[in-house]
Amino acid sequence: MLRINEERFLSDLKELAEIGATPDGGVSRQALTPADIEGRRWFQGKIAEAGLDYNMDGAGNQSAILHSDPPSEKRILAGSHLDSVPNGGRYDGSLGVLVAFEALRTLKDSGITPPVSLEAVNFTDEESAIMGLMGSKALVGQLTEADFERSRVDVDELTRRFSAIGITRESMLAARRDDALAWVELHIEQGTRLETDGIDIGVVNAIVGIRSIHVTFRGEAAHAGAKPMELRRDALWGASQFVLLARQHVMDNYTPGVCNVGIIKAKPGAFNIVPAEVYCALEFRHGSEAEMDRMQTDLLRLLRECAAEFNLSVEYQATPPVIPATMSESVMGAIERAADALGLSRERMLSFAGHDTQNVAAIAPAAMYFVPSVDGISHNPKEFTRDADCVNGANLMLHTLLELTKVFA
Amino acid sequence: MLRINEERFLSDLKELAEIGATPDGGVSRQALTPADIEGRRWFQGKIAEAGLDYNMDGAGNQSAILHSDPPSEKRILAGSHLDSVPNGGRYDGSLGVLVAFEALRTLKDSGITPPVSLEAVNFTDEESAIMGLMGSKALVGQLTEADFERSRVDVDELTRRFSAIGITRESMLAARRDDALAWVELHIEQGTRLETDGIDIGVVNAIVGIRSIHVTFRGEAAHAGAKPMELRRDALWGASQFVLLARQHVMDNYTPGVCNVGIIKAKPGAFNIVPAEVYCALEFRHGSEAEMDRMQTDLLRLLRECAAEFNLSVEYQATPPVIPATMSESVMGAIERAADALGLSRERMLSFAGHDTQNVAAIAPAAMYFVPSVDGISHNPKEFTRDADCVNGANLMLHTLLELTKVFA
Repeated sequence: MLRINEERFLSDLKELAEIGATPDGGVSRQALTPADIEGRRWFQGKIAEAGLDYNMDGAGNQSAILHSDPPSEKRILAGSHLDSVPNGGRYDGSLGVLVAFEALRTLKDSGITPPVSLEAVNFTDEESAIMGLMGSKALVGQLTEADFERSRVDVDELTRRFSAIGITRESMLAARRDDALAWVELHIEQGTRLETDGIDIGVVNAIVGIRSIHVTFRGEAAHAGAKPMELRRDALWGASQFVLLARQHVMDNYTPGVCNVGIIKAKPGAFNIVPAEVYCALEFRHGSEAEMDRMQTDLLRLLRECAAEFNLSVEYQATPPVIPATMSESVMGAIERAADALGLSRERMLSFAGHDTQNVAAIAPAAMYFVPSVDGISHNPKEFTRDADCVNGANLMLHTLLELTKVFA
Repeated sequence: MLRINEERFLSDLKELAEIGATPDGGVSRQALTPADIEGRRWFQGKIAEAGLDYNMDGAGNQSAILHSDPPSEKRILAGSHLDSVPNGGRYDGSLGVLVAFEALRTLKDSGITPPVSLEAVNFTDEESAIMGLMGSKALVGQLTEADFERSRVDVDELTRRFSAIGITRESMLAARRDDALAWVELHIEQGTRLETDGIDIGVVNAIVGIRSIHVTFRGEAAHAGAKPMELRRDALWGASQFVLLARQHVMDNYTPGVCNVGIIKAKPGAFNIVPAEVYCALEFRHGSEAEMDRMQTDLLRLLRECAAEFNLSVEYQATPPVIPATMSESVMGAIERAADALGLSRERMLSFAGHDTQNVAAIAPAAMYFVPSVDGISHNPKEFTRDADCVNGANLMLHTLLELTKVFA
């Protein structure tokens, strides 16, 4: 059974981690900064070295291409991103690009010409240095002028970074592709479920949607001595009740869906004043849009019940949601058949973090899989995935692509 | 039965409210500011007009004195304070000084020479413009140099304010008196219990002690998506549970004692991060020191239980407490006999706010009584006590002082 070149692959992973390396073993390669541009150049050089075709689209997305003969009009895509968060880890994104590249390189070395062209992609700005998921959003034609307005860097810096790799706003907005037959991405889990369960591979069946709601409970400020407790309208009582009931309700009814209250503030905010107002930042996530609708209905009902119980009013305001992305059964099936053939144990799971895959899913059957992250540490120099798991991930990418050519060629 | 001069008394109350008046009917007479000094001058003038003796001690406390014949060595004291919070109400403090003054004036007008000298006092800086309860603290000899260090105004301003009325730090520290036989104070309730129960007079049996505790729950920051809820150590879960259990426990076991969590903050504080740390400001009040000890034991146990339930740690740090002041049965008895004679309904209750009486209680049998506050509004221009209740309070002061002369002469 065909296998990737372990030594070469692990050596590349190590080489790449030296670009933008931080003293503690992490990397800082924020999108289109000098370190990221050096990483991109390194990737382009590797592609040339491997004898694969190279392409960069109008969004700065880089590809290694292994053509079918004759080159097919449509292609099967795989990959991830080479950019990182500031002081991030060496696996997040990089491993996903390198396994796709290594898979193509292995096929080429073995003299295998696929029945449909294969492409290993490095997406631009996945990690939000500019806006996040930018390259994949451009690829599926969903990027708009408005996205540039909410860029985290100013106009001049944005122009400087784009021109550094020869792209423009206009080229980004025109980067939509219609030639993707299917998409697959490997990523580190960024959680501990695989490690806890002793499983090799997590087959992602959905990337969760995220809804964020600003909640304000309102009661009445009062003297924390003179006002009898039974007459108080303490906004913190309602908020506390909600935190506990929301927790229990979501755990009982929506697992593996989750909720969080990550911010809480009481006004006026003094030892001796009963809180008149409590603000809470509520977030919840689920893999199914229908379940998210139900969760939202339930959570808003709980908010109202908790307010009523303590004679409070409550207001809430939702922010723009992230829609869950359901993964393609065809692509998941290909991953699972390949895993079974390689003897890798696997289970289906949700991805609770966002990935380029959720964008690509809009234009092609798409799925992704996880390899274990030690202790679930991520976006941190201590992020670590064992060599054996990296190699498993690469072999699985190789055979998943082969499976996908059977389905989609 | 002897009664105060209603018209004169209510007219004085109105006149006084014009000094430092705010546009919305309140007053701003922060201690030893020009408005307060004008109020003090007004009071001194009224005392002279009434033919009573005037005295100001080293702490700036002003007194109207009605001497026995011959003047007794010891005296019965009554009063409150003329200073106010910024943008406060016209009753808080002022009413207490004026009822004592009106009682003495009525006795004098009626040609009654008491068997022991009586004194109506205006205490300096009750309302914390400088440090709070300053004049009464000086009177009982508990003021120290350290108190000046924690003054809310700077050294120069403090000196300016003191010299404006001819006092110094030294004279303040030497203002201790040993001639108080008993003390009584009228104050507005600053709560709604009298109004709710339809009772004329609240006889205060204790001024509550206050304990304030800084509480920090500590768990672990985590990704609000990727970390399964059952594995989270969410500090807000523990804090919310504590808020609710503390509320229930105090209401069930310590009423009319109260507790409050007035400040709450989660760190790191983001929609998508599970709170690693939650700070809460916990305060509780009770009229009995022994009960406060029990409350504290119970609340600290609850803190530890709530932390343990959610796999958190908890730390707490107490700030210097305010010790409860138990009122004198002799003085309460005098108030109650006088109320009964006047046909005023009365009930015993705690004072949840601090008053000069708690200081005076250290050197003499002391008690205080409340008249109703409409809607319990206080420290606010909307503060209001009906004329009839003001008059009741003044007549009660007159007859309480007469009762006290029977007990203490």
